[in-house]
Amino acid sequence: MSCSEFSLIEKYFSQQTNQRDDVVVGIGDDAAVMQLAANEQLIVSTDTMVDGVHFPKETSPFDIGYKLMAVNLSDLASMGAQPRWASLALSLPESDERWLEDFSAGLFELAGKYSVQLVGGDTTRGPLTLSLTLQGTVTENQYLQRSGAQVGDAIFVSGQLGDAGLALRQLQAKQGVNTQLLARLNRPTPRVELGQSLQGVAHAAIDISDGLLADLGHIMEASELGAELQLEDLPISEAVSLTTAEGDWSLPLNAGDDYELCFTVPESSIGQLASQHCLLTRIGTVVANKGIDCFTSTGERLEARRTGYQHFDSRQTREVTS
Amino acid sequence: MSCSEFSLIEKYFSQQTNQRDDVVVGIGDDAAVMQLAANEQLIVSTDTMVDGVHFPKETSPFDIGYKLMAVNLSDLASMGAQPRWASLALSLPESDERWLEDFSAGLFELAGKYSVQLVGGDTTRGPLTLSLTLQGTVTENQYLQRSGAQVGDAIFVSGQLGDAGLALRQLQAKQGVNTQLLARLNRPTPRVELGQSLQGVAHAAIDISDGLLADLGHIMEASELGAELQLEDLPISEAVSLTTAEGDWSLPLNAGDDYELCFTVPESSIGQLASQHCLLTRIGTVVANKGIDCFTSTGERLEARRTGYQHFDSRQTREVTS
Repeated sequence: MSCSEFSLIEKYFSQQTNQRDDVVVGIGDDAAVMQLAANEQLIVSTDTMVDGVHFPKETSPFDIGYKLMAVNLSDLASMGAQPRWASLALSLPESDERWLEDFSAGLFELAGKYSVQLVGGDTTRGPLTLSLTLQGTVTENQYLQRSGAQVGDAIFVSGQLGDAGLALRQLQAKQGVNTQLLARLNRPTPRVELGQSLQGVAHAAIDISDGLLADLGHIMEASELGAELQLEDLPISEAVSLTTAEGDWSLPLNAGDDYELCFTVPESSIGQLASQHCLLTRIGTVVANKGIDCFTSTGERLEARRTGYQHFDSRQTREVTS
Repeated sequence: MSCSEFSLIEKYFSQQTNQRDDVVVGIGDDAAVMQLAANEQLIVSTDTMVDGVHFPKETSPFDIGYKLMAVNLSDLASMGAQPRWASLALSLPESDERWLEDFSAGLFELAGKYSVQLVGGDTTRGPLTLSLTLQGTVTENQYLQRSGAQVGDAIFVSGQLGDAGLALRQLQAKQGVNTQLLARLNRPTPRVELGQSLQGVAHAAIDISDGLLADLGHIMEASELGAELQLEDLPISEAVSLTTAEGDWSLPLNAGDDYELCFTVPESSIGQLASQHCLLTRIGTVVANKGIDCFTSTGERLEARRTGYQHFDSRQTREVTS
């Protein structure tokens, strides 16, 4: 990029970010240098978003930036980590000042909320692809994992399920989507404080990016156990309840992009969840039999397909990890 | 991706990587967990490579993987860091087992040499774009920076300059390129051991990715000083000397992709460089006057354009940092 384009990037990324005390060398050298305390472990997550795969082409740059930060924060939340530092790899078809302004505004709006400092990254010309690596810390060995669920644990989820999926469904059908629902798709709320508060309380945790059944399934596979869910207990909005009332449970069970946390806690620790500021709902119980069974209010078992989340253009993506 | 495609990725990435003792949780959870020692600082670098921008379309997957690791290792080398953990963000147009096999073989060949463990990342479907975030450590405050050069410092470079640029020039001209020269372009040698040995010796350091003048220029700007270079002292191969003999110094001065280190040391410390296993050449001296002046053997000053490196398709890219 030309010199003036480089200045744009300087302007939109290095000038706007938080300045943390634990960043020894930030943007501007070959690599960044950061300070951890002696009793801390490093937590690292990477998430990529590709134009036309992870978001419809009409998505605003602000929402792309916001969501890129949100999905990475959500990964750290599911580990119980405190977010700290981010590196951005941005491939952009052309230098577009307006785009960079809006994108960085979205990215930093959420980064600012969690005191995340952008410490590096690089920008190249190419197809619109965005990858963020987010780094955080936990006090030694206090991280949460997918494994660790135990028979008899209560299964909880935060927030409500299926709203993001419903927004996507309406977008695909070229229907009008109301603002609140669209915000659930484009600006998910990472449950960072909740994740941290689950240290020493939850046996296992994951964030719901690919749908409840798929992600709870990861907990169960890692823990070598199974789950029984009560469909009537799933926390859903009025809008989503219009679909479940017709017997279609695919939104709360299979739709992705909600970025709520799903976690298991022993009965004896449920009382410790009371002080949370977000909605927490018990939806089922961990059992010894593998697989996930969903029961209706009349005790019938639903034949649930564990398809996971189809991205909006039906091309699935899958994480290696993190 | 389908289940079988996911298995491919598991097979090519999580199975093949090193297993380090300091990785508490590796691939397979929402994020990775790593252990640093109490007196260590974290060093992080991100580099992205885009098909058709950073490498010609005919580049082999092995070489792409090798170079992706090399350029990130080179950033850590220039900080004097010990490489440890990597996260990969891979966007791939289609699931291609042969491609993944070759790419991962190249990536892990170099990762293995430096005991780097792949701890996470994600793979998505999309235009071929590869981004690696590499993490390393230094003993507290022993990192090298671009700033810190002092008047009178000797300026050194490792290896030879311009070979990668010559290979690229020949490729673009559809000429045959000999194997050795092509390897300098596709499989650069990151100077990791050299970088670490420069702790406490060099005043300033950088890796040469965009050409000597551009990158030495970064040291000089960060240090608010200038440099005088002796053209006859530039370490070049016989092949490159055929171009400089005609008065064209653009390959050693402006061509990128060599990934050698450029660093400044006080006269009193030059003796400490003797034990290095790679070629080190003094090419000039740090002076108070800003800018970089290049002198011929007869004492004439060359009017050098500080254009930096043009990527092979003439679309320039520029790092935010790291």
